[in-house]
Amino acid sequence: ENTTELQTQRDQLRHKLQETELRNEELELQLVGLEQRVESRRLEEQSFRKSLRSLLQMLDGKIFELSALRDSLAKLMDSHSS
Amino acid sequence: ENTTELQTQRDQLRHKLQETELRNEELELQLVGLEQRVESRRLEEQSFRKSLRSLLQMLDGKIFELSALRDSLAKLMDSHSS
Amino acid sequence: ENTTELQTQRDQLRHKLQETELRNEELELQLVGLEQRVESRRLEEQSFRKSLRSLLQMLDGKIFELSALRDSLAKLMDSHSS
Amino acid sequence: ENTTELQTQRDQLRHKLQETELRNEELELQLVGLEQRVESRRLEEQSFRKSLRSLLQMLDGKIFELSALRDSLAKLMDSHSS
Repeated sequence: ENTTELQTQRDQLRHKLQETELRNEELELQLVGLEQRVESRRLEEQSFRKSLRSLLQMLDGKIFELSALRDSLAKLMDSHSS
Repeated sequence: ENTTELQTQRDQLRHKLQETELRNEELELQLVGLEQRVESRRLEEQSFRKSLRSLLQMLDGKIFELSALRDSLAKLMDSHSS
Repeated sequence: ENTTELQTQRDQLRHKLQETELRNEELELQLVGLEQRVESRRLEEQSFRKSLRSLLQMLDGKIFELSALRDSLAKLMDSHSS
Repeated sequence: ENTTELQTQRDQLRHKLQETELRNEELELQLVGLEQRVESRRLEEQSFRKSLRSLLQMLDGKIFELSALRDSLAKLMDSHSS
């Protein structure tokens, strides 16, 4: 191989390497961005489910209170049935 | 009419009047007793209905709270739907 | 006792007996009337309580359905919690 | 520059380019994998919310039925209050 050919090969490789490293950085940014979106989404879901669980517990409470009310009604009926 | 016949009539009427007055007292006692039972029953019913109304109001409250809970659930869903 | 006096006594007794029998009939009518009102009231109460019991059973059903719904919500939350 | 030096440079660049392209492929695989997880998660959430909405509608129905029952109770009380 002569010197000129080697120089050409080296320059082409340098150029290709630069392009590939640029693409690399782009992909890493995309990945970090997506990971951040996933984490933010996860936290939002966590908060949503926490609120849902809290409302579900309140629903439990209301159903319990309704049942107690129903029992009071039944007892009232029994004590006044003659 | 001779005296003997008149005495017999008078004595029979006396006896009949006594029986009728006795029956009268009995009926008056029955009437008072029944009126007392009616009044006692009326008071019992009044108390029963007062308790029923109170439980009905509590039922209203529970249904209102259930509806509020339902609205909170709907708002939560809307605020997290993306 | 002479005949005139006996006749007067007999006539007074007849009159008193008539009055007492009339009062008797009045009392019997009042009693029957009150007994009818009591019976009619009893039947009305019976019908009222039957309706109340029926509504109470429907309330039972609704509370049962609410509880089943609550269980479905809890199962949904558990199956989607990750 | 002499030929030997140029060959060394060229070989180093070739090696570096290979490594960078490998890293590139890795990043692209990670990105595709994460995008697939995000999409699968999105579909799961969508199904979860659809089920939630369906249960919320059933809750609406139950609350409506409870209110109707409450109205029936109130009407019964009114029609029998004497």
